[in-house]
Amino acid sequence: MNLLLLDPGEIDAMGLARLGGGRARHLRQVLKVEPGQDLRLGVVDGAAGTGRVLSTEEEHVVLRCSLEARTVPRPRVDVLLALPRPKVMRRLWAQLAALGAGQIILTNAERVERNYFDTHVLDPDCYRPLLIEGMQQARDTRVPLVSIHRRLKVLLEDDLDGLFGGGLRLLAHPSGENAPAPAERRGFGATLSAIAADQAGERALLAIGPEGGWTPFERQLFAAHRFHPIDMGRRTLRSDTACVALLALLHDAWPRVAAGYASHRAGNVR
Amino acid sequence: MNLLLLDPGEIDAMGLARLGGGRARHLRQVLKVEPGQDLRLGVVDGAAGTGRVLSTEEEHVVLRCSLEARTVPRPRVDVLLALPRPKVMRRLWAQLAALGAGQIILTNAERVERNYFDTHVLDPDCYRPLLIEGMQQARDTRVPLVSIHRRLKVLLEDDLDGLFGGGLRLLAHPSGENAPAPAERRGFGATLSAIAADQAGERALLAIGPEGGWTPFERQLFAAHRFHPIDMGRRTLRSDTACVALLALLHDAWPRVAAGYASHRAGNVR
Repeated sequence: MNLLLLDPGEIDAMGLARLGGGRARHLRQVLKVEPGQDLRLGVVDGAAGTGRVLSTEEEHVVLRCSLEARTVPRPRVDVLLALPRPKVMRRLWAQLAALGAGQIILTNAERVERNYFDTHVLDPDCYRPLLIEGMQQARDTRVPLVSIHRRLKVLLEDDLDGLFGGGLRLLAHPSGENAPAPAERRGFGATLSAIAADQAGERALLAIGPEGGWTPFERQLFAAHRFHPIDMGRRTLRSDTACVALLALLHDAWPRVAAGYASHRAGNVR
Repeated sequence: MNLLLLDPGEIDAMGLARLGGGRARHLRQVLKVEPGQDLRLGVVDGAAGTGRVLSTEEEHVVLRCSLEARTVPRPRVDVLLALPRPKVMRRLWAQLAALGAGQIILTNAERVERNYFDTHVLDPDCYRPLLIEGMQQARDTRVPLVSIHRRLKVLLEDDLDGLFGGGLRLLAHPSGENAPAPAERRGFGATLSAIAADQAGERALLAIGPEGGWTPFERQLFAAHRFHPIDMGRRTLRSDTACVALLALLHDAWPRVAAGYASHRAGNVR
């Protein structure tokens, strides 16, 4: 835990937070906090700041909290994911939150098994603590927005513009052996800049398919809704590995691509 | 499975391979291969090629194999990993092989629990099938070389030059909140180029720490053995997530960094 997340209601008017239960135990027994010590903390969907430990008595930890004025910005990358099998999804929640996702859009697809949707892994009581775990790991305070969609066509045709308006839409699809050899590839960032050109925007949305990939019909549907295919080269990865790998590449490249777009647009307006 | 891997001894002098057991069942029942169909295949640590299905009778599948003349090159990125807990390591084997690792060097460290080394996950009978699974996923034929080291100091001082001679050595270490904001970061590829400058080489080695990170003493030891620190920015990731994310970034950037080095060296020689 690199940042302790509190709910807004846990900090009183005097700036004091009195924690009990598992979090107090973790602070006392694992992190071995002592009175006088400062902890990095944050408020869920709010600002980050510092907590000075005032006392660690009676199985509680009391903190005096000082929050920064500015709310932490939401990560500018969103993920649209064909629902993986429950065991894999359970592992992904914290990883997605740690890598940074503004929203997580889960969808059905031809190659997703229908019964994956009946799992408790899609229950907020199950996934929210996992998201919080990932955010505490990565020092984020913004909980990814989660939505679950049982029909891909309805999602793309009716709901997506409301969830993700202007911005760059990317469809991860392995080109496999048709991809250029590593030495000839220009790299993810350059590929992204070329795709984005003058049409990007502030945010990026990355769609990742199920094991076995999107069907040709689904790929056409994505293309009709302004998704641009992107890949990682010749190696085809399992969808959960691809999810982590592509999110890392996108987070690395996106700030510069989006900045390039902003300056391009400023140039056009002048 | 995107490429079927065979052991060299499985192909006879006529170029025929007769498969039984689990692989034949997978080909018949999951991939539903039919006589006349061509499959992508490869020989372990050898060439890739094609297999024409000749028959699928009597619970066997017979293939006529045509291999390319050229052996698949070994991935040019190696990984040095503080041994994670067995459950995590079990998941990583196939992921590392799929992302591409020339060798996997596992080591002890101050923050690794000693009993992690007693697990069967470090037994070749356990990990080799997992590596093969990852290679079949990513269409690779080169099995990562695996070595296991119980003393980090001995590894760095006595063994590493033999395992990894010339080339760029990188030490993943999160800079956390001290990292520049995303908008100010120049990106992984540019950072790598600046580190590599004129001292790179053909291969890169990426060292990834345990949960809780390397100790200050260990970081000094790595620095004394020509490891350059590199990070992914402000977000601190769990070590298995960091492993996948950093390997993806390194594979994306390395071909161009190494090519830049090669042309720089050519210029110096001229």
